[in-house]
Amino acid sequence: MAFLSTLTPFVAAVLCVVIVLFLRSRNRAQSSATAGSSKEPTVESDVTVKSRPWVDQDLQDDTDILKSDDDDWAESSDEEDLPHVSYTPQRYPEDTMLERSQSFYTLMNQRRSVRFISPDPVPREVIANVIRTAGTSPSGAHTEPWMFVVVSDPDTKSKIRLIVEEEEEVNYRQRMGDKWVNDLARFRANWIKEYLDVAPYLLLVFKQTSGILPNGKKKTHYYNEISVSISCGILLTALQNVGLVTVTSTPLNCGPKLRLLLKRPANEKLLMLLPVGYPSPGATVPDLKRKPLEDIMVHI
Amino acid sequence: MAFLSTLTPFVAAVLCVVIVLFLRSRNRAQSSATAGSSKEPTVESDVTVKSRPWVDQDLQDDTDILKSDDDDWAESSDEEDLPHVSYTPQRYPEDTMLERSQSFYTLMNQRRSVRFISPDPVPREVIANVIRTAGTSPSGAHTEPWMFVVVSDPDTKSKIRLIVEEEEEVNYRQRMGDKWVNDLARFRANWIKEYLDVAPYLLLVFKQTSGILPNGKKKTHYYNEISVSISCGILLTALQNVGLVTVTSTPLNCGPKLRLLLKRPANEKLLMLLPVGYPSPGATVPDLKRKPLEDIMVHI
Repeated sequence: MAFLSTLTPFVAAVLCVVIVLFLRSRNRAQSSATAGSSKEPTVESDVTVKSRPWVDQDLQDDTDILKSDDDDWAESSDEEDLPHVSYTPQRYPEDTMLERSQSFYTLMNQRRSVRFISPDPVPREVIANVIRTAGTSPSGAHTEPWMFVVVSDPDTKSKIRLIVEEEEEVNYRQRMGDKWVNDLARFRANWIKEYLDVAPYLLLVFKQTSGILPNGKKKTHYYNEISVSISCGILLTALQNVGLVTVTSTPLNCGPKLRLLLKRPANEKLLMLLPVGYPSPGATVPDLKRKPLEDIMVHI
Repeated sequence: MAFLSTLTPFVAAVLCVVIVLFLRSRNRAQSSATAGSSKEPTVESDVTVKSRPWVDQDLQDDTDILKSDDDDWAESSDEEDLPHVSYTPQRYPEDTMLERSQSFYTLMNQRRSVRFISPDPVPREVIANVIRTAGTSPSGAHTEPWMFVVVSDPDTKSKIRLIVEEEEEVNYRQRMGDKWVNDLARFRANWIKEYLDVAPYLLLVFKQTSGILPNGKKKTHYYNEISVSISCGILLTALQNVGLVTVTSTPLNCGPKLRLLLKRPANEKLLMLLPVGYPSPGATVPDLKRKPLEDIMVHI
């Protein structure tokens, strides 16, 4: 007991240090949690962010958008110095507009995600035009933060398939371990991606999270993920317009490996992988329906 | 000293509890940091996330994608139970494809972000078809996580303008305080958004971060931001196809206020605000250029 008594001041000192450290780490966790939830207290978020009171958390990705130039994408300071030119596009009569809107909807409504892709070759210039079209997308501060890597080389396609399937297998196995034990065979079907070998083209879409300014400094590309996703939407319409099919995929965890394989710089991150070609003769799609207009639109 | 001695067991017990709590909180912080940086040690990230070893950090938004069903968007478990139907879309001859790809590119390349919008009325059914077309977008696990709020009511448009301009002014002023002192008038021009009052329609695009399962449980919508952005890309092509203009904007911080104004539920977050109409007669656009194909595409 005497031994313990002599230790007491030491124990008390340690206790104080530990309490201080604990409270500090707790405070930090709390301030993060507050920053993450202050705008929307009713929504749970697993992502904690540093405090940025005036940046909408809805719009954050892994890019720091603290100093976002503007909400209005094309009004960058670069652009303010540009001369303005008059813009007078074609104006259609109302019945033509109605007709055009209807027939474009009909064409786009036939688009489906297709996993059965024919090895038939597709003219290279068609793919080039499709990517030119995707490049007309708007982007935050007109940064055009996209890079489309078109792969037709069989060897590279095989390597891509290997990387994607390997990661997919890990994904599925880990998910099973986490969540439920299930028929392995069912999942195996999911991580085999034959089309990655078969499709005449793989389009790997990278988002450029930053660029280089003329003065050599790094320039953050705000909203790069949203911008590149919009350009992918335009790309999908361009593919559908020429009768080509694809399936929108976002390979988990493969980004860094595929980036290195394709020798892309570190400021580019893989956002999507799209195999492109004609549908194979026996192609099937799940018999799913789309939401009716009243479920996706309200008019005020 | 005797008093302290009798306290020692109590102090030791408290010490143990505190140490355990402290170590637990420290462990959690460490595993977050590891998860946030393990894939790309060279890239700085301000966002720390819980440990998710197999989820690509490139693809994280504020939605928890821990249990993402798949990378291949339409292969949700729901869909696996769906019967498959054959898919035989129209196949065009190669010269037709080339011609179609060229003329679609020409049309889309005429699209510009336009801030000078005519108050002329636009047929409602055209807007409905444009939104139907946006609704054909692919989405993670076919969740269709979008809601398009079409506002033509003048009073609501005024309220939207007020909310957006108020927040914009705060954004600009704070940015100035943060970064540099500059001509106030230059920025004022940026936070005045006349088109919000003038355009016949405002389209407010919401992403649904989650939905409700038939059993009443919450269902996370994986990749909802990417999905909705893709659908916005399709929407832009549909607008361009009928000769209407818009400007892609992502109003900072206005999301919650606008959501409440429009009476949208808490699982919906504002992603974009698009004023839509004909360009006004004197409309101008900055004389900017797009990157040439060789700067956005590589072929392997």
